[in-house]
Amino acid sequence: MNAPTLQDIREAAIRIAPLAHRTPVLTSRGLDEICGAQAFFKCENLQRTGSFKIRGASNAILALSDDEVRGGVVTHSSGNHASAVACAARHRGIRADIVVPNNTPKAKQETAAGFGGEIHLCEPTLAARQAAVDTIQQRTGATMVHPYDNPLVIAGQGTAALELLADIPDLDAVAAPVSGGGLLSGTAIAATGLKPGIQVFGAEPERADDACRSFHSGKLEPLLTSDTIADGLRAALCQRTLDVIRAQVTDILTVSEAQIIEAMKLIWRYLKIVVEPSGAVPFAMLMAHRERFAGRRVGLILSGGNLDLEKLPWQT
Amino acid sequence: MNAPTLQDIREAAIRIAPLAHRTPVLTSRGLDEICGAQAFFKCENLQRTGSFKIRGASNAILALSDDEVRGGVVTHSSGNHASAVACAARHRGIRADIVVPNNTPKAKQETAAGFGGEIHLCEPTLAARQAAVDTIQQRTGATMVHPYDNPLVIAGQGTAALELLADIPDLDAVAAPVSGGGLLSGTAIAATGLKPGIQVFGAEPERADDACRSFHSGKLEPLLTSDTIADGLRAALCQRTLDVIRAQVTDILTVSEAQIIEAMKLIWRYLKIVVEPSGAVPFAMLMAHRERFAGRRVGLILSGGNLDLEKLPWQT
Repeated sequence: MNAPTLQDIREAAIRIAPLAHRTPVLTSRGLDEICGAQAFFKCENLQRTGSFKIRGASNAILALSDDEVRGGVVTHSSGNHASAVACAARHRGIRADIVVPNNTPKAKQETAAGFGGEIHLCEPTLAARQAAVDTIQQRTGATMVHPYDNPLVIAGQGTAALELLADIPDLDAVAAPVSGGGLLSGTAIAATGLKPGIQVFGAEPERADDACRSFHSGKLEPLLTSDTIADGLRAALCQRTLDVIRAQVTDILTVSEAQIIEAMKLIWRYLKIVVEPSGAVPFAMLMAHRERFAGRRVGLILSGGNLDLEKLPWQT
Repeated sequence: MNAPTLQDIREAAIRIAPLAHRTPVLTSRGLDEICGAQAFFKCENLQRTGSFKIRGASNAILALSDDEVRGGVVTHSSGNHASAVACAARHRGIRADIVVPNNTPKAKQETAAGFGGEIHLCEPTLAARQAAVDTIQQRTGATMVHPYDNPLVIAGQGTAALELLADIPDLDAVAAPVSGGGLLSGTAIAATGLKPGIQVFGAEPERADDACRSFHSGKLEPLLTSDTIADGLRAALCQRTLDVIRAQVTDILTVSEAQIIEAMKLIWRYLKIVVEPSGAVPFAMLMAHRERFAGRRVGLILSGGNLDLEKLPWQT
């Protein structure tokens, strides 16, 4: 398959049930007053491994045949997909090699290693990531579990929206952060499949806005900068995710670094949960583009909560 | 009544239902490995107003007659009870005057003011708190809602343990932080009432250890220092709470400042939730006294999540 269907996402939900938590949906009157909308936070920071990534990784790894996992699995990831692949591989009893850019927060590297993944550091470019994966595959014969250019991964990520809409059926819109587009694609397929007419938004940092530009131009635009504080959103769309997003997403809206930090701090303060910068991007979008969402009921995929606690972004 | 009964706590649960959330119970394999026990965190940091205090304050305020609230309510509090009284008073449509020691974190002062409470700063001693309350009462005729020396407040606080044991019935022990003893008294009455033979522990900072000393001597011992980082635990027991605790609590165990900070950081990192220092004290106890809890199933009242996010205790 090229892109998964709603049925694939439903099957993913059954397949990943032994590994992934059903996460809660939190709300806050205080945050609703601040953003002028009604926000429903799907708390994937409380997910196993600290992010939604376990959904896609475990769906892909559990669906592989015994033959396909003989050499283990390999992937590249700026952090959360790394932990997810390591966790799912351990669950299946196979080896996981993980290529991690050397600018990934230490907390994320340690978490992945803690699940038993073998970490290989590389330069922080997509080319260097792929080269390192190729080298490992030649040596071990491992199967690549791509962080987003994989229909099983996309189907797994879509299970978060499936649960969100089961808990809060009367949403006007859903929003997810966008990096490589796996989460946004899965969210769009699940949400529009369950509820035709629902709006689906991608939320993206201005400083990694390839998805916004690609969405509007219709072709894959290069990532020009990748130094956003939202360290989970430094990858670029692929043709597979761009096709889904062009077909099923309402719009992709961008936010500034300052807006991400402000949103993150408000979530910590009002919801009392630890969210990483990437996970705060959809709420930042709600505040930055409030005219689009005034008074509406918006589900936000709060993607993860892994970050270094030594220094927080709002601290000078 | 002098001390509430299990039946009073059950009635409190019904009375406060319109105001208090039923909070989730979280677990973490990682934290269980670290402490060597099975910990069940009753997340009162996710409670309305950010702490368990809304339970006792709303039970007391909703139980008062119209005549008793004509002059509004008044209280003194190092923070969380202040917000709780302000929130419950606003719900009932009455005035709340709140006396707050001037060493209370700014975040807690602002939260209380945000609920419509009138804040009056005083010196950080119990004598100064009481004097300020007396002055306000003489002027307004307000009814005092004591933070813990009040059976309705104690009954309200006990509703957290009621919910915890309903969700996780097979606990070997429950633990709560202890300051004035309202939460610990209510927890003990609820837990031993529901499950005779269950052990109940108070967890207290070494630097505010009056409850531990009073528990062992049998009489009210003075608070010698009150500069612990656990700013919610700087009050001392009263005769009413000491009597309940002596009769129904298994032991009170103390922890160092470093242990509180370590426990707090671990909770942030593994549970992805924001807990204030006071709320981390029971988990600090589990780690500091691990021989007492090895392999046992222990419910911990994670009391609150209100703190200044500008500088965290583990940051130098």
